[in-house]
Amino acid sequence: MPIAQSAGSVVSTAAVLNQLTWRYAVKKFDAQKKLSDDVWKTLEDALVLSPSSFGLQPWKFFVVDNPDLRKKLRAHAWNQSQITDAARLVVFAIKKNLSVDDVRRFISFTAETRKIPKESLAAYAQMMEGFVARPPLDINVWAARQVYIALGNFLTTAALLGVDACPMEGFDPTQFDEILGLTQKGYAAVVVATAGYRAADDGYALAAKVRYPKSEMIEHVN
Amino acid sequence: MPIAQSAGSVVSTAAVLNQLTWRYAVKKFDAQKKLSDDVWKTLEDALVLSPSSFGLQPWKFFVVDNPDLRKKLRAHAWNQSQITDAARLVVFAIKKNLSVDDVRRFISFTAETRKIPKESLAAYAQMMEGFVARPPLDINVWAARQVYIALGNFLTTAALLGVDACPMEGFDPTQFDEILGLTQKGYAAVVVATAGYRAADDGYALAAKVRYPKSEMIEHVN
Repeated sequence: MPIAQSAGSVVSTAAVLNQLTWRYAVKKFDAQKKLSDDVWKTLEDALVLSPSSFGLQPWKFFVVDNPDLRKKLRAHAWNQSQITDAARLVVFAIKKNLSVDDVRRFISFTAETRKIPKESLAAYAQMMEGFVARPPLDINVWAARQVYIALGNFLTTAALLGVDACPMEGFDPTQFDEILGLTQKGYAAVVVATAGYRAADDGYALAAKVRYPKSEMIEHVN
Repeated sequence: MPIAQSAGSVVSTAAVLNQLTWRYAVKKFDAQKKLSDDVWKTLEDALVLSPSSFGLQPWKFFVVDNPDLRKKLRAHAWNQSQITDAARLVVFAIKKNLSVDDVRRFISFTAETRKIPKESLAAYAQMMEGFVARPPLDINVWAARQVYIALGNFLTTAALLGVDACPMEGFDPTQFDEILGLTQKGYAAVVVATAGYRAADDGYALAAKVRYPKSEMIEHVN
């Protein structure tokens, strides 16, 4: 990827806070409203650009467009309407049991991307190989955390683009893995996001946002 | 919080992708460059606004400004310079062992915020109480995932505001908990983010971003 120059801030602080306050976990999407191709492409690109520890990207994002499949998934997600009615459904999956082989592949890919000798990455490679072989955490627990960075990135990007979304943990991952064939591909579903536009009659859109006071959530340690 | 009206998209898709490409995990901050009060206030507000499962906010964000404390923390973070040199340091912590009491407090707070009777939230309360008592996951593992949503939100918001950041897992959480006194407060550090402005001579700023191809990271299931 080319190196981007920043235009500094591309949005005002007031607009950021307005959008983050405007967003909410949509309960009812307008099933007729689709996302434009440009907006959806941007949200997919944002997923790919998500940060991860060491840059290892221990994940894959499964976008399910097939209505029959979405119906099947809905049955294993407490019958929540977002699964079938949102313009888009993304299943965030970890790559299971990330190994030294994945690190080696990542190092080769980094060397290729940056046009540098692989040997110049030896220390970095060694550190990462040590990490995946003996992490402080179960490697799948660690990978799931990374996936949630991508989820946070996705939700914030959507909000800034004026796109509604709903993150969802209320589903049966085993059934999702089965229906989408993730297990044999080496992946496991951990969280879902739906995106589209809220229905005009989703009452939750008008409910005041519930956040504990800033004075309680942020502590300055001095 | 008041209900925000969206201005639709507040930023172009091209600008979003430019900023997400521009951002990188800063290795060397310019220790002289501070963030404006307005920008930092916005980043703190964004943290408070972060989405979480059920809206439970099982977290707290510790902002460490004291240089001596930051020096101490650096010693337990592989001596990485970002810990002392970034304009700001945030330690993202989970609230440990979230319980039915936390759910009850959240329900009361929700009723108060929305000016509705607590009884109208009975089904929601029951579902959440069941979840924290018998979650599919260890409740602290679940809380840590939520914290990573806040991290993703923070990093994306920073990028959009033209603020540099570096997420960091390379530290000893036990030592951080001890130095910041988190354990006796019922919290545990899980990840760190530093924010500020990159040093002009941070070579990593010019390295091409390494992301696997979109065709590999995103799969359309049809």
